[in-house]
Amino acid sequence: MSCAALSSGDGSCSPPSTLGSVHNGIAHLALNIFSIDTSANSSADPAVTFVISALFTSTLILLAVSLHLLNKEWHLWRDIKLTLEGIFDRVPSIENEVILPSLAPPTNKSNPTHPPPLIDPSSPELLHCFSPSTLSPLGTVPNLTPSQIASLAARAKAAQSSWKYSTFAQRRRVLRTLQKYIVSHVDDICRLCACDSGKTRVDALLGEILTTCEKIRTLLHHGETWLERSPRPVNPMMVHKSAYVEYVPLGVLGIIAPWNYPFHNMLNHVLSGIFSGNAVMTKVSEHTSWSSVYFHSICRAALEVNGFDPELVQLCTGGAETGKALVECPNVDKIFFTGSPNVGRHVMRGAAPFLKPVVLELGGKDAMVFCEDVKLDDVIPWAMRGCFQNCGQNCCGVERLFVYESIVKEFIKAMVERVGSLRQGCPLGERDVDCGAMVMDAQCDIIQALVDDAVAKGAVVHCGGKRNKGGDIAEGGQFYQPTLISGVTPAMRIWKEEVFGPIMCVITVPNDDDEVCVQMVNDCPFGLGSSVYSASTSRALAIGSQFQTGMFTANDFGVNYLIQSLPFGGVKESGFGRFAGPEGLRACCLERSIVVDRIPGVRTSIPKAIDYPMDTKRGMGFGIGLVELFYGDSIWIKLKSIVALIRNG
Amino acid sequence: MSCAALSSGDGSCSPPSTLGSVHNGIAHLALNIFSIDTSANSSADPAVTFVISALFTSTLILLAVSLHLLNKEWHLWRDIKLTLEGIFDRVPSIENEVILPSLAPPTNKSNPTHPPPLIDPSSPELLHCFSPSTLSPLGTVPNLTPSQIASLAARAKAAQSSWKYSTFAQRRRVLRTLQKYIVSHVDDICRLCACDSGKTRVDALLGEILTTCEKIRTLLHHGETWLERSPRPVNPMMVHKSAYVEYVPLGVLGIIAPWNYPFHNMLNHVLSGIFSGNAVMTKVSEHTSWSSVYFHSICRAALEVNGFDPELVQLCTGGAETGKALVECPNVDKIFFTGSPNVGRHVMRGAAPFLKPVVLELGGKDAMVFCEDVKLDDVIPWAMRGCFQNCGQNCCGVERLFVYESIVKEFIKAMVERVGSLRQGCPLGERDVDCGAMVMDAQCDIIQALVDDAVAKGAVVHCGGKRNKGGDIAEGGQFYQPTLISGVTPAMRIWKEEVFGPIMCVITVPNDDDEVCVQMVNDCPFGLGSSVYSASTSRALAIGSQFQTGMFTANDFGVNYLIQSLPFGGVKESGFGRFAGPEGLRACCLERSIVVDRIPGVRTSIPKAIDYPMDTKRGMGFGIGLVELFYGDSIWIKLKSIVALIRNG
Repeated sequence: MSCAALSSGDGSCSPPSTLGSVHNGIAHLALNIFSIDTSANSSADPAVTFVISALFTSTLILLAVSLHLLNKEWHLWRDIKLTLEGIFDRVPSIENEVILPSLAPPTNKSNPTHPPPLIDPSSPELLHCFSPSTLSPLGTVPNLTPSQIASLAARAKAAQSSWKYSTFAQRRRVLRTLQKYIVSHVDDICRLCACDSGKTRVDALLGEILTTCEKIRTLLHHGETWLERSPRPVNPMMVHKSAYVEYVPLGVLGIIAPWNYPFHNMLNHVLSGIFSGNAVMTKVSEHTSWSSVYFHSICRAALEVNGFDPELVQLCTGGAETGKALVECPNVDKIFFTGSPNVGRHVMRGAAPFLKPVVLELGGKDAMVFCEDVKLDDVIPWAMRGCFQNCGQNCCGVERLFVYESIVKEFIKAMVERVGSLRQGCPLGERDVDCGAMVMDAQCDIIQALVDDAVAKGAVVHCGGKRNKGGDIAEGGQFYQPTLISGVTPAMRIWKEEVFGPIMCVITVPNDDDEVCVQMVNDCPFGLGSSVYSASTSRALAIGSQFQTGMFTANDFGVNYLIQSLPFGGVKESGFGRFAGPEGLRACCLERSIVVDRIPGVRTSIPKAIDYPMDTKRGMGFGIGLVELFYGDSIWIKLKSIVALIRNG
Repeated sequence: MSCAALSSGDGSCSPPSTLGSVHNGIAHLALNIFSIDTSANSSADPAVTFVISALFTSTLILLAVSLHLLNKEWHLWRDIKLTLEGIFDRVPSIENEVILPSLAPPTNKSNPTHPPPLIDPSSPELLHCFSPSTLSPLGTVPNLTPSQIASLAARAKAAQSSWKYSTFAQRRRVLRTLQKYIVSHVDDICRLCACDSGKTRVDALLGEILTTCEKIRTLLHHGETWLERSPRPVNPMMVHKSAYVEYVPLGVLGIIAPWNYPFHNMLNHVLSGIFSGNAVMTKVSEHTSWSSVYFHSICRAALEVNGFDPELVQLCTGGAETGKALVECPNVDKIFFTGSPNVGRHVMRGAAPFLKPVVLELGGKDAMVFCEDVKLDDVIPWAMRGCFQNCGQNCCGVERLFVYESIVKEFIKAMVERVGSLRQGCPLGERDVDCGAMVMDAQCDIIQALVDDAVAKGAVVHCGGKRNKGGDIAEGGQFYQPTLISGVTPAMRIWKEEVFGPIMCVITVPNDDDEVCVQMVNDCPFGLGSSVYSASTSRALAIGSQFQTGMFTANDFGVNYLIQSLPFGGVKESGFGRFAGPEGLRACCLERSIVVDRIPGVRTSIPKAIDYPMDTKRGMGFGIGLVELFYGDSIWIKLKSIVALIRNG
């Protein structure tokens, strides 16, 4: 079938000949694309030509439509655009702009038995920082007063007034500059975190670096889409209107960050805050302020090197009064607090007179459940990571390990050996360590009281159970032994109170009963995260879907936070509001509803019947007609209403 | 070309003969569908057959894909399903279940000069209701104590424990039952609202009935979609995981509703609350409790007639102590408060010890702007409706009318006549009235103080400006004259303080300057709604997009709330949180992040390098490799990282 043969339609087919030649051309193209040897056949039936061309054309149209729709779903063009941006728009380096603090090998020559005071009464304007694993001093940071906070807020606000007009491409450049720096300084950042908070460097890498990098990747990839206008359907009365929600930066965000992840807790909100067009003021914990000065300088440098005002990101060091000043500062538009429920109550109460919105992320007492059908070897590493990551100083650390009755004995036997073999010590020494120090000395006392109470009420301590003051610990410091405790019951304080330490707390689920397990897990004032491990994913999901928690993972741990498109937050004493995901990004914005005219020249006017001055009878008649027309549930009512509308309109 | 001819392929074509016969069949089907007379031609080239069948098959596949995608965008199947549900699933009537209170013609025989006390000290367990337009008594409702609230909450919680498992189809049935009742009882409901709150019946129809019906329609149409699982993209490290957010009912919602729209303010939250699977307890205002008993009975009947526990919806009548009890009740999971900023502060402070989330909708001082290019005749009806709808007792009533300098004189001249002609009086009498009474007598004093202050500082009162005690008002009652005031400046209290009364407050925008207009509008502690009228929609939008308000409408008024797919709420002293729209519906839910395995049999395990016990060097090497692989910004770094991962993994 040759091209010439195909195009010589004899006109006997139904389509007219002008269309016929078009069909011939299209059919020829189709055959060429399908690599059909058209010279082998010379018969050119116009009907067949028509079918081929019709099918080919419709295929092309549908392909185009599908690609367009898939684009909406898959964001194909966005992905191409972002890839090109990543390849051709190289971001600057900030190595030279950031001064890494000298990290002297931690020493403890004076060997104090208690941590030094944070504030020396002779110089209340300073906070004295020290390393929890050695108690050796690190340096000082300012203890900012309310008036200093007010002045920082004014500078942040001024910087935000131009930053809010920056494009998403510009914001992505700043984030990519940060990303580039972080990726090439992983070890430095981990060492600083380890020095300031006592955690191991691997804990820092998993909890501070990986989470922050993934947050940046997610914002680069999805942030702009999440802040795009959200169009809304209009009702039949409003077909001439276009309605949408736009996300406008709030202004200055006030962050009160905890001490467990000094790097990530600062960067987390800086990233979402500036990406959504806001300024960010972070009140860091007084217990991990030393490293925050360096982390803050990274943020400033990334802004400055891209030509933006570094005052957009402010660091607020100080104690509780500094945090209070931030909450009460009139130039701060919203508070994101992460910490304990008790301080959360103060923050909410403190924000009330200013009608300032608050997001409260108040820790948890997360359950990890092992059904009787799990393979112990598979799940034991998860139990270890869940309980001992960051020495248990983890919002969503596993504080309650529910093990089904028929495997609990074997499980404890395996764990005694595992937990007993954990090595504790200064994370910056020569020796490998699994568990670091506690950031707060007072936390060791809280943990001890909870463990002692449990033991007094019948719990069994298999390993650990006290402060670590000697033996492994050559350097001194604030250590609590990795602990394995079983036989925990609702009568014990540890059943409900947050531990925030390296305690694996095993609770037996009697009779391997899923329903009882759900009741036990929900018997808790907190509701942050949870996980269930079972050979059957659907069983794990069926159990977990009944938990009163803000997050749930089947057969895994921590991935909820590593998937940064998911909102993070809890319920009950774990607080309310969300960060991360589109929810978290939009929480940095004013969600603004807009209605505009869709059709040029077409505007709403008030019907005479309901304009002032009013004829009540006519107005009611007209209004009832409207209601019946749009909301009546039968054709008869709708028809009747049209008469009423005409009569009264 | 016959069917037989088509199927006798000679094998000369590239596809194998088994496939060949499939192609023949498909091609035959395609030709039949296109109604090609296949008998006219006997040549059956297998190549052509192959092209026809390939194109036809791909057309079908693409058609299916397109329809599926279109379904996601257009919700085609949902619309068909809902239409069929509306036609074939007739809902029951509840006329016989609801007892309409006898609406005796309002009288005022004793002619009291002051409203009767709400609480008679001899019977503190009762609230005495009266009609604001006549001061005549309506009846009593219980003044509930904290223990009574606790008992109602327990009943609501019990009812919710089964309601949460109801299907969306069942919930839609309940809503459609309500809709059916409302549509056939518009006049009754309007009369009750008029009697209890003093508003005109047309005000009730527009503000209570139309909004409620549209809310029901929106929930019926979009509610299920808005509460569907929201799937989330996963990151490259987590491709084996499926992540989504699900919306789980919170439990019992506590509503504290104001007195300006007694019917809608109750139904509004009952509808979204029960549709999202919750129980709802509404503390209605002590000033409009009488009608709420009837409105509550409608909700109960709609549940009961469909076979559900009517205890799901509770009515809480009483004063401030009753509201406090609701905020503090442990069985109430979230508070939605609508009212003044001052009471909002109390609510937020009261909720803080219980870490209870609050949504605060605290009124506004909405601006309506008339640019110099508007046609006065077109915009005057909007100014009238914006200022005098519900006698100005409207969250998003127009409290500040910004008129551009070059048209302000002409505008005021036209308005003097219009406002002066408004007729005020009892809305249930024989006479037509445009403006009703004020719900609270004390509000008249607040308005008077604001007007007097403005006049003392140079504002001009063109009409009204005082209580309406005689003349038009034959019946007595709490009336304030429809008032037109101009020359308002920032020095006056009325510039910033909420009026909530029938006052048209004209502010001149000097030099017709858009920028100055924006500054003037934003010089306000409130930020609820706003609107701009201009001949150019783009100019209106450009001005309005700079307003610090939660809502904005170009060339229209009130439609933001009539489009119930838009979230409703404000910023600054107007509060925070949203109701209406998907935001409002999801605000009734726990937003729960879920991660499950996507591929059967594929689960995450912890890499040896970062499992306990730890080799720090290996762990760090592996971790840095991961970071560089996923977040490094060059191919070189990524390639290098693979070596590190292999070496340490």
